[in-house]
Amino acid sequence: MSSTEIITSPQNQYIQLVRGLLEQSKLRRKRQSFVAEGARLLEDGIDSELALQFALYKSDLSPRAAQVLKLLPPLVPAFLVESRLFEQLSDTETSQGILAVFSIPNPAPPSHPDFLVLLDQVRDPGNVGTILRTAEAAGAQAVILAPGTVDAWSPKVVRSGMGSHFRLPILSLDWPFIAQLTQNTQTLQADMEGQQIYWQADFTKPTTLVIGGEADGISPDAESLVTGSVRIPMSGQNESLNAAISAGILLFEVLRQRSK
Amino acid sequence: MSSTEIITSPQNQYIQLVRGLLEQSKLRRKRQSFVAEGARLLEDGIDSELALQFALYKSDLSPRAAQVLKLLPPLVPAFLVESRLFEQLSDTETSQGILAVFSIPNPAPPSHPDFLVLLDQVRDPGNVGTILRTAEAAGAQAVILAPGTVDAWSPKVVRSGMGSHFRLPILSLDWPFIAQLTQNTQTLQADMEGQQIYWQADFTKPTTLVIGGEADGISPDAESLVTGSVRIPMSGQNESLNAAISAGILLFEVLRQRSK
Repeated sequence: MSSTEIITSPQNQYIQLVRGLLEQSKLRRKRQSFVAEGARLLEDGIDSELALQFALYKSDLSPRAAQVLKLLPPLVPAFLVESRLFEQLSDTETSQGILAVFSIPNPAPPSHPDFLVLLDQVRDPGNVGTILRTAEAAGAQAVILAPGTVDAWSPKVVRSGMGSHFRLPILSLDWPFIAQLTQNTQTLQADMEGQQIYWQADFTKPTTLVIGGEADGISPDAESLVTGSVRIPMSGQNESLNAAISAGILLFEVLRQRSK
Repeated sequence: MSSTEIITSPQNQYIQLVRGLLEQSKLRRKRQSFVAEGARLLEDGIDSELALQFALYKSDLSPRAAQVLKLLPPLVPAFLVESRLFEQLSDTETSQGILAVFSIPNPAPPSHPDFLVLLDQVRDPGNVGTILRTAEAAGAQAVILAPGTVDAWSPKVVRSGMGSHFRLPILSLDWPFIAQLTQNTQTLQADMEGQQIYWQADFTKPTTLVIGGEADGISPDAESLVTGSVRIPMSGQNESLNAAISAGILLFEVLRQRSK
């Protein structure tokens, strides 16, 4: 449902809302809403069950973005925004001139936890998005974001998540609930000093993988839940791997062991 | 060897050179020089065999950066730069107020190729740096950069390489030389449609792993060298993994198989 009006004012309520959702995690939490930019992400969003609230677009869209505009569900409002105003709002290169506001889902935690990822104090948005993308690919049931981890719904995380936000259950939980959810899994910390080399761990058991931040490692709260630790052995002189790389290696070791 | 003068002019020859090396791959190639920023990278550089040409620093250094300044080899000139000028030059957050110019090494290719990584059309600097870091950790002998891959010595690649530039042989080669170097290895392309699931490949044989760009895949030149392909099976609906994540999973599968 596109309107014929053109939004030209920075004070317009939709412009203000999108700007706020792009910049403030507090507003994202309050409104339980986030912004997805670009044709590809919007295709994923339209295919998903997440509620699409409204879309903004500028004129002279790419053919793919124009196609996406036609695919919007009936009754979803889409507003044309004056090009310069749109470009101020968003990273035009990734938005391709179209963006939409979706409701943040509230998925039920898995009733039989078998393969969970717990992110603890991971601060780099690109890493968090990449881990979400990789966790989906490896078949994790859900990714849990502990307090102190970056907001999963920020524009950078959404961008590097490459659509996994629309398909993978993402659970922002507090510690008592995390403890309850993971109590019947082995909760393994990835750590340079880990007890076991990762390929010697038995990942066919119900497992929660705990990924800590590159700078801060894991928190005391996470430590109290951990039942063991695995290390990725290193051949060179470097001391560590990027957190998303470590996560990818471990996630696919789970998949490898379970595929046998 | 620190001088007592303070550099205050943007026209100063050292300032001009550093700015050029940060911004232009052409100048890096011509001068066979690159810039490393920050205490941690400089520590790695000082520990390496790469020639350190000169350092620039600003006043009010962090204790770690001040320590690095003392560790500079004798006869290496270090120039104090007026703070505002230094900050314009560099990303102060990562430089911590100190940077240095090193000579790009010209390592000999391994005489018995056994574990090589070939990057082909990988354009994202962060991905290239992360792959270098991961390749070092997994024990690759060298990383080959094919024509069309991003310059390994750009500031973003150096930063995300986390010191691997100082330890890992990085070879920027043209295709005839790449063909010669890899001729006695199995040359396996990572591909979503690959013939074999990656853990079914025999990585104990001499291997070259070919990583293509996320957008462009691999070039016809690379295709003509490839002897087989491996795929990373995916469980979710997403179509691909980040190139650095794919590389990490495959690199550590090589290490895993060879550790048995």
